[in-house]
Amino acid sequence: MALLRSFPIVLWGLVAVHAEEGMWTYNNFPSQKLNALHGFAPSEQWLEKARLASVRLAQGCSASFVSPNGLILTNHHCATACIQDLSTPEKDYLAKGFWARQEGEELRCPNVEANQLAEITDVTAAITKVTSGKKDQEANEARKAEIARLEKAAATSENVRCDVVTLYGGGHYELYKYRRYQDVRLVFAPELGIALFGGDPDNFMFPRYNLDLSFLRAYDNGRPAASPNFFAVSKSGPKEGDLTFVSGHPGGTYRQLTIAQLELERDFVKPHLLYSFSELRGNLVQFQQRGAEQKRVSQSYLLSVENTIKAFKGEQAALTSKDFFKQLQAKEVDFRKRVMADRKLAFGMGGLWDEMEAVVKRERALFLRYIYLAAGFRTSLFAHARQLVRLADELAKPNEKRLEEYTESRLPQLRQYLLSTAPVSKELEIEKMTFALTKLVEALGPDDPDVRRILGKQSPREIATSMVNGTQLDQPQVCKRLLEGGKAALDQSTDPMIGLARKIDPAARAVRKQHEDEVESPIKRLGEKLAQARFAVYGASIYPDATFTLRLSVGQVKGWMESGRMVHPFTIFGGAFERHTGSDPFALPGSWLDAKEKLNPQTHFNFVTTNDIIGGNSGSPVFNKDLQLVGLIFDGNIHSLGGNYGFDPEVNRAVAVDSAGIMEALEKVYGAGRVVNELFRPPPAP
Amino acid sequence: MALLRSFPIVLWGLVAVHAEEGMWTYNNFPSQKLNALHGFAPSEQWLEKARLASVRLAQGCSASFVSPNGLILTNHHCATACIQDLSTPEKDYLAKGFWARQEGEELRCPNVEANQLAEITDVTAAITKVTSGKKDQEANEARKAEIARLEKAAATSENVRCDVVTLYGGGHYELYKYRRYQDVRLVFAPELGIALFGGDPDNFMFPRYNLDLSFLRAYDNGRPAASPNFFAVSKSGPKEGDLTFVSGHPGGTYRQLTIAQLELERDFVKPHLLYSFSELRGNLVQFQQRGAEQKRVSQSYLLSVENTIKAFKGEQAALTSKDFFKQLQAKEVDFRKRVMADRKLAFGMGGLWDEMEAVVKRERALFLRYIYLAAGFRTSLFAHARQLVRLADELAKPNEKRLEEYTESRLPQLRQYLLSTAPVSKELEIEKMTFALTKLVEALGPDDPDVRRILGKQSPREIATSMVNGTQLDQPQVCKRLLEGGKAALDQSTDPMIGLARKIDPAARAVRKQHEDEVESPIKRLGEKLAQARFAVYGASIYPDATFTLRLSVGQVKGWMESGRMVHPFTIFGGAFERHTGSDPFALPGSWLDAKEKLNPQTHFNFVTTNDIIGGNSGSPVFNKDLQLVGLIFDGNIHSLGGNYGFDPEVNRAVAVDSAGIMEALEKVYGAGRVVNELFRPPPAP
Repeated sequence: MALLRSFPIVLWGLVAVHAEEGMWTYNNFPSQKLNALHGFAPSEQWLEKARLASVRLAQGCSASFVSPNGLILTNHHCATACIQDLSTPEKDYLAKGFWARQEGEELRCPNVEANQLAEITDVTAAITKVTSGKKDQEANEARKAEIARLEKAAATSENVRCDVVTLYGGGHYELYKYRRYQDVRLVFAPELGIALFGGDPDNFMFPRYNLDLSFLRAYDNGRPAASPNFFAVSKSGPKEGDLTFVSGHPGGTYRQLTIAQLELERDFVKPHLLYSFSELRGNLVQFQQRGAEQKRVSQSYLLSVENTIKAFKGEQAALTSKDFFKQLQAKEVDFRKRVMADRKLAFGMGGLWDEMEAVVKRERALFLRYIYLAAGFRTSLFAHARQLVRLADELAKPNEKRLEEYTESRLPQLRQYLLSTAPVSKELEIEKMTFALTKLVEALGPDDPDVRRILGKQSPREIATSMVNGTQLDQPQVCKRLLEGGKAALDQSTDPMIGLARKIDPAARAVRKQHEDEVESPIKRLGEKLAQARFAVYGASIYPDATFTLRLSVGQVKGWMESGRMVHPFTIFGGAFERHTGSDPFALPGSWLDAKEKLNPQTHFNFVTTNDIIGGNSGSPVFNKDLQLVGLIFDGNIHSLGGNYGFDPEVNRAVAVDSAGIMEALEKVYGAGRVVNELFRPPPAP
Repeated sequence: MALLRSFPIVLWGLVAVHAEEGMWTYNNFPSQKLNALHGFAPSEQWLEKARLASVRLAQGCSASFVSPNGLILTNHHCATACIQDLSTPEKDYLAKGFWARQEGEELRCPNVEANQLAEITDVTAAITKVTSGKKDQEANEARKAEIARLEKAAATSENVRCDVVTLYGGGHYELYKYRRYQDVRLVFAPELGIALFGGDPDNFMFPRYNLDLSFLRAYDNGRPAASPNFFAVSKSGPKEGDLTFVSGHPGGTYRQLTIAQLELERDFVKPHLLYSFSELRGNLVQFQQRGAEQKRVSQSYLLSVENTIKAFKGEQAALTSKDFFKQLQAKEVDFRKRVMADRKLAFGMGGLWDEMEAVVKRERALFLRYIYLAAGFRTSLFAHARQLVRLADELAKPNEKRLEEYTESRLPQLRQYLLSTAPVSKELEIEKMTFALTKLVEALGPDDPDVRRILGKQSPREIATSMVNGTQLDQPQVCKRLLEGGKAALDQSTDPMIGLARKIDPAARAVRKQHEDEVESPIKRLGEKLAQARFAVYGASIYPDATFTLRLSVGQVKGWMESGRMVHPFTIFGGAFERHTGSDPFALPGSWLDAKEKLNPQTHFNFVTTNDIIGGNSGSPVFNKDLQLVGLIFDGNIHSLGGNYGFDPEVNRAVAVDSAGIMEALEKVYGAGRVVNELFRPPPAP
């Protein structure tokens, strides 16, 4: 029902007009404002500890250290891929849960990288120096080269990861230096049935009853890593009205886009993706009917597709809400008016929005070729082939001339991915690749020369079947040999998937270049100008759109009004048992049914806060001003999806697992004493 | 690529400002205007002959008589369901084609009704008399009762079908009296591979190479029906520039909707349906991978789903085109201004558009409950159960008090449907029903009381499996017994599907009633007022929106400009062989490959005209002023989909099979001498 709701409240975005709004960078946190509102101003030390206790999972999630020994708390859905990768037909950890009773049983995730933000350096001057005075395309290339140079220079070892991040849409560049952990092991995960209780129907809904958590551990040289900065876990959880902080990595918000860009999103991009994902979902759901093993190997993929669909639908509901969109339009009108009212500022800005509209037209014209040839085509084995082919070509170039994902600072994560031992289901790969090729034909048309070159006289299914069955890229040692053998090994390979990647690559690179030159480059220039104007008009106390960099948000535990009724901010264990029907996705696992008598039904299970979060924040710690962890972010309510474009403090809510519920479940359902002990009686750091 | 196009040309709709625009009723055909433009004014006799040679297939298509012995020409895709229904695992007529070498081999379609429009009577006065002065809801009920009464009074036998149709959105009511044929038999159908050559990728595209035809025959008392009014088939087909008429049954256009109604369509209804259909498509495509038999039994269903998706996407492309929508807005502004400029007319019209906006809000709020509980849920076996349950209840009421689809005049078609011998695949039904129930939960939420009552503690798949496996409604004799046994038999039935229909019916009827009272009734009143104003402002020479009633449109054979290049109006046989790859959907059938040497590659295959058509026109004859059939409508180009909302003469095109191609294929590929002889040397009527 939630998708039907309109979004009637005035919202803003970027200029935080509400206490709760804002995904603040750690080096521009509005302590004064917080002090004025809540009588609490975080100290530098407090901020540093929170930052160092925060963890990014490089594949797209947030997390935190919860013991001095590298123990990491994150969501179950942030570790689903790892849990599935470690499973076998005989040991299905996704369905049954996982629990390492001793350190030696902790299992390394094939493809997880954890990052801890160690240092932030402003590099705006260096970047603007190399781009100033250049035309769009040249400036874009110079910017990328300088970023590659800066990142490489700062990364002193493989354990250090350096990313130059663009903030405020181009007005500001900072170098984020992370401690990198690639040996990350699974410690504990409950059953999917309770982690995702209610499944897709309950996703982005509240009240909720999910134990959406997992424990991982960062290792250093084969030993648990030292993590002196960590959050102590509160056994009692928060109370209604408590001030809450969330430190995490929101993936992306689009509150600064122009109306022309939002219209493209609303009228073309999102609908196109939603049709595709919906079809893929139907395909996967039916694929799972082939049998239990097929269900097992496609489970994490289907869950991610379903989550994407629901998130996109919520975002579309916001964009197609007349009231909501009118407010976004009003925001742009106000901004333009203020810019034009300042003669100095107005100079050179007059045609900016029209120019953006022209770029958007170009973006639309290129969109399908771009996503299907350059960006898309994301089946695991084809992606491996493309990465190997490109890597060999790119490594032959100097660092500054490479495509950005092959610059030195990105290589460790790429190598981890290519050498991952995660099993690949060829049966599922055939379906994914058939689907991808079918969509390619549909998007570009059967007469497109690139489509003809790729398909020849074969159907998508024929090609997918012969490629997937013929390739050996599912074997890590084959990938390793090709990776280490470089261009020579690649050129000699007769692997059909490598052959296909080679065949597609010229067209893929061409459309990517075209997109960079005609869309990305001018948007960057326009973005910089808009950012400068925004600072000039609204002052320095604004926050940048989310970019999967660490942010701190402030809120409180608080319900909201839904259709005239107040939604209470907490749910309790008893509610989960009431909601249990016995049928998936409303079936509690046996462990919970067995433990029912031992559990206190009044224990808080999930709760909501007014913190401003978005996708990528999953796994973020919720903590109080004493830096005690009281909850674990795992979702937003349906209204929070409009937060992509603008924040509405009346109804936007973050959804978290209560730390009281976590403790009770660990102790009474799972008897996970080792973890509980570590959380409460942390042994001395090694 | 077509979906990317914008719709830049000024369009109108309903007020025919272009020569080609207009789906004219036979009793208001603009002969004068045609004469002025083309020097040809159809006589009354000409119009009568064209009307009587036109055929409606009541399940949703158009067709025509092409011999005096009841021979009917329509599309393959209008007979796909019949062809599949008549097939078995051993005899797959869809894949292999069907050809009755003698009359005795013609096979009766389980569920096809053909209608010939015999008479039109204006009943506006009778209807407005019973509704005038009444409030919306009362007026709606009185209107329905009067319609039921008029239809029953006019239908003198089971062979006569009478429908009161609403024209001009409510301004006008006419009684359409049809000769009804329920014994309709399959005579000839080519292989699906050539009927739908190019499949979904080529659907709504041009150039095309489709033999999208089938021949049926109407029977009367077990003998071929006499059809003295028929179209003679031209062996040479049309030439570029030729004047063309199309007589058929466009299903529905929405050129008169207010902007508020169009916004609901664009922002909510269409996207929702497209997500659903896309998911269903993915589901069916993967279902077909279970095996050849599963592919066979789901083929016609999948084709209809794919066609719907592509049509909807084209319509959305029009509605989300900024230029196109601006023109629709300008049209409304112009209309409102003219209404307001006329003081007499303006009285009582001022708040009309705002009132419509309020109704639209209500419509949106009710939409999901309405389509999932009242209208939706269309799996064959559940639909049978619901019809049987309702019919028993409705027949107990007087004709005028029944739900409209159970009034006397509708019963013959309903009985045909319920007693159909078309086979039902229970395996496919389980999937359809699982999908429908899953969408119901998703749309209304797992906590909705009706959802809870329907699902209980079971999952959608569990219910679907037990219902479908447990029901006997797939057996025609069981349906017959329940149909003839009436309420008593129904009440005693322990069939689980009947039980489910009983369980859902109170909620389904309630939301339908709510929808009738709060949406349908006020829209009818507002529609009547708008229609009256439209007549007053624009005069009598306007055409009503399409309503699946017989219409005549005028056009000519003419290409169009696409991305700066002229698209030639004809394709030839040679092009089909060039396009042949050997892989589905670009694989010509063996019969064509074998006949290649005998065929003249220059023979015209398909062509385009400027006729104004829409879905439902499929199977319509294209004929010249001598009433010779020169083509067979089977599609529109991608731009024609915007025709749902406004006609653009520059790019809107109807797509037809050329009669020259039809003749050559029948003779040289199929050796279908019996049909060719009947088309050219019609034997004396029996």
